[in-house]
Amino acid sequence: MSATAAGKLDINVSETQLLADLERLGRIGLGADGGITRRALSNEDAEARSYVAERMRAAGLDVRHDEVGNLRARRPARDGATWNTRSNVVMTGSHLDSVPSGGKLDGPLGVVGAVCAVEALNAAGVQTERPIELVVFVGEEGSRFKRGTIGSAALSGHVAVADVLALVDPDGVIYRNAMATYGDSGAAIPARVERGSVHAFVELHVEQGGVLESSGTDIGAVTTIAGLVQHMVTFHGDANHAGATPMHLRRDALLAAAQWALGIERAAREVGGGAVGTVGKLTVEPGGKNIIPGRVDAICDLRAPTPELLTALAGFVISSLHGIGEQRGVEIEQQLLQRVEPGPMHELAIAAVERAAAAAGLSSLRMPSGAIHDALHVAEVAPASMIFVPSIGGKSHCPTEATQPRDLVRGVDVLARTLAILANE
Amino acid sequence: MSATAAGKLDINVSETQLLADLERLGRIGLGADGGITRRALSNEDAEARSYVAERMRAAGLDVRHDEVGNLRARRPARDGATWNTRSNVVMTGSHLDSVPSGGKLDGPLGVVGAVCAVEALNAAGVQTERPIELVVFVGEEGSRFKRGTIGSAALSGHVAVADVLALVDPDGVIYRNAMATYGDSGAAIPARVERGSVHAFVELHVEQGGVLESSGTDIGAVTTIAGLVQHMVTFHGDANHAGATPMHLRRDALLAAAQWALGIERAAREVGGGAVGTVGKLTVEPGGKNIIPGRVDAICDLRAPTPELLTALAGFVISSLHGIGEQRGVEIEQQLLQRVEPGPMHELAIAAVERAAAAAGLSSLRMPSGAIHDALHVAEVAPASMIFVPSIGGKSHCPTEATQPRDLVRGVDVLARTLAILANE
Repeated sequence: MSATAAGKLDINVSETQLLADLERLGRIGLGADGGITRRALSNEDAEARSYVAERMRAAGLDVRHDEVGNLRARRPARDGATWNTRSNVVMTGSHLDSVPSGGKLDGPLGVVGAVCAVEALNAAGVQTERPIELVVFVGEEGSRFKRGTIGSAALSGHVAVADVLALVDPDGVIYRNAMATYGDSGAAIPARVERGSVHAFVELHVEQGGVLESSGTDIGAVTTIAGLVQHMVTFHGDANHAGATPMHLRRDALLAAAQWALGIERAAREVGGGAVGTVGKLTVEPGGKNIIPGRVDAICDLRAPTPELLTALAGFVISSLHGIGEQRGVEIEQQLLQRVEPGPMHELAIAAVERAAAAAGLSSLRMPSGAIHDALHVAEVAPASMIFVPSIGGKSHCPTEATQPRDLVRGVDVLARTLAILANE
Repeated sequence: MSATAAGKLDINVSETQLLADLERLGRIGLGADGGITRRALSNEDAEARSYVAERMRAAGLDVRHDEVGNLRARRPARDGATWNTRSNVVMTGSHLDSVPSGGKLDGPLGVVGAVCAVEALNAAGVQTERPIELVVFVGEEGSRFKRGTIGSAALSGHVAVADVLALVDPDGVIYRNAMATYGDSGAAIPARVERGSVHAFVELHVEQGGVLESSGTDIGAVTTIAGLVQHMVTFHGDANHAGATPMHLRRDALLAAAQWALGIERAAREVGGGAVGTVGKLTVEPGGKNIIPGRVDAICDLRAPTPELLTALAGFVISSLHGIGEQRGVEIEQQLLQRVEPGPMHELAIAAVERAAAAAGLSSLRMPSGAIHDALHVAEVAPASMIFVPSIGGKSHCPTEATQPRDLVRGVDVLARTLAILANE
């Protein structure tokens, strides 16, 4: 099959199988509120992984796991080579761990979607020049250990395997020991892949925002993963009596924080280019209804698709604190929690997604990802992109996260075609 | 003694005794953070009350308690009459209960200050035409039962005694049964006083704000007690991913609340005339650092010295919600928690405080009280005012609430002189 023949592939994704897989995974770690909680390397995570490993084997894949716990499975190339191939591999995958009380698509769609895509390629009799590797990245969400995207960061060499194995969760469990849930999935292979050994990577994921839905587009071809700056900011005011303290004698920590939060919104709009800024966490002390707020602790989350825009936004947000503090007599402390550089995707992979969408008769849109994904790290060592499908109401990281079944199937269809393009070009 | 002779009184307040009394009470209910927690009718409240009753008896007062648990003690008039007097009485007093982790002056100063004032009158050989009654009002702070100013509201007839006795605390304890801590303080007298039976009332209290301190004034003569409107407001936004949701697709509940809170500040300044507005309690859900706030619950506390100003301020604050909701696509619910009408003090009592201050060689300032006090209810049946002393840094309702010992003594001095003026005029 030539690359240009991708349009002629007879890809038929099994909607029944895809929904059954998502439904099955959606019962593992299901809580009373309808949300799913699967922490990295927990029993729930292991149960989900076992189910997926079984599905992978049924699809004819050779299943391994690596030193940090990424599940890795290969579909043979035309010449029958899998792990011992001399040609570089085409990779796809996502994660199975979740945020606390998250949805059933964030991660799992890109995992079981990849298995269903391979099954569609099998059914269509598609053979490829390069083997295709499916990866279940461990610990993407960062809801157990201190950092997220653990598996992909180890795979790209962004963090050392030894540093991953030494991570400790809030209960004092060391990552190395939490790996015990792996048991019998075969001997561990190295986590790290060398630059040049992966021809391309593509990850299927729900958008988690409302851009595709509101623009009526079927598929997003991700051009960049936005970088991130998070600051913790504490406003120290004066907790006086709300009745007895005239307006001009107040040092109200909440009003200072309110002014700052509204300024972040203004700055993100002014910086433009897809920059966003949010104050998602904010607590008020002492919190009495008749006491002027004496202290506010808040965290801002700033994102932008280029380092320049990210620096501009963060610069404004932090420099605005000085004037607010002066004006209100409020002392302000701030601390950088993290900065993650933006990750540009690669034209080779972006174009493959676009071509696959067109071949499937679907509309597509080049767009940045505001959320961080494993593709960010894989992009450090291989050409990468992502396939986004619409999220209903832009909802994610919550029990109501959902996508129309039709759109789920379309995403898997495009994934199958993209893999075929990349593995044969 | 004639009224004009007040200036010639040889009043010598015992600083040692006053500070010892405050220190002694300050150990009852003292917590690890240095704050005092004495809920109405608790064991701590009873212990404080017993101490005060003993001090009252030592000062020559006849001590009773009434049906709702106000401790009431009388100093005989010149003719020896106490409870069975035909002339109307001059009252003073405050409360012993506290907010959670409050200070040692809010309430106790007006209680032991009254005892020390009586002792100063005794030492100076001052006799009066009218008996003087000291009252310890029960449950002023509202930190146990659903309402505050319980004792004074029952005394004025603002609430019926039967309704007070039927109050229930969060643990299900009925007020009537909580009264068991009273035990042997003598037979209960009626709580309610008839209009005309009280010549005047004056309450000594810390200012709890920064007006006296910042203006360098010794004594505040309270002209009115500001009214209060409290609303609970809920902002319903959309809890989406902070990275994946562009600014123009957001419905951020916190930004709506921030805009509202800053608008309250602006409105209070514009309304002027001593109006103040505060958002002291505000919670953000879900509260994840990378999730756009989907819900904010907040309470606003609005105060003004006249009904007109209070209505103007509350009107603005509530009407502003509509525009904010429209602008941000945020649904907003609001509920009135309470409205307390402003309580004008009486010229008879205000002027007596001013004259007493002048007689003691102290500066005084006519000022409103932003905080609510028992004097608000007593004013419904008798001419009333309050004596304020400066609060260091305007601090109150917290462990760091404090007043210079010199200022405490001055307040008691002015109280003694005010009582002498009112009881002899």
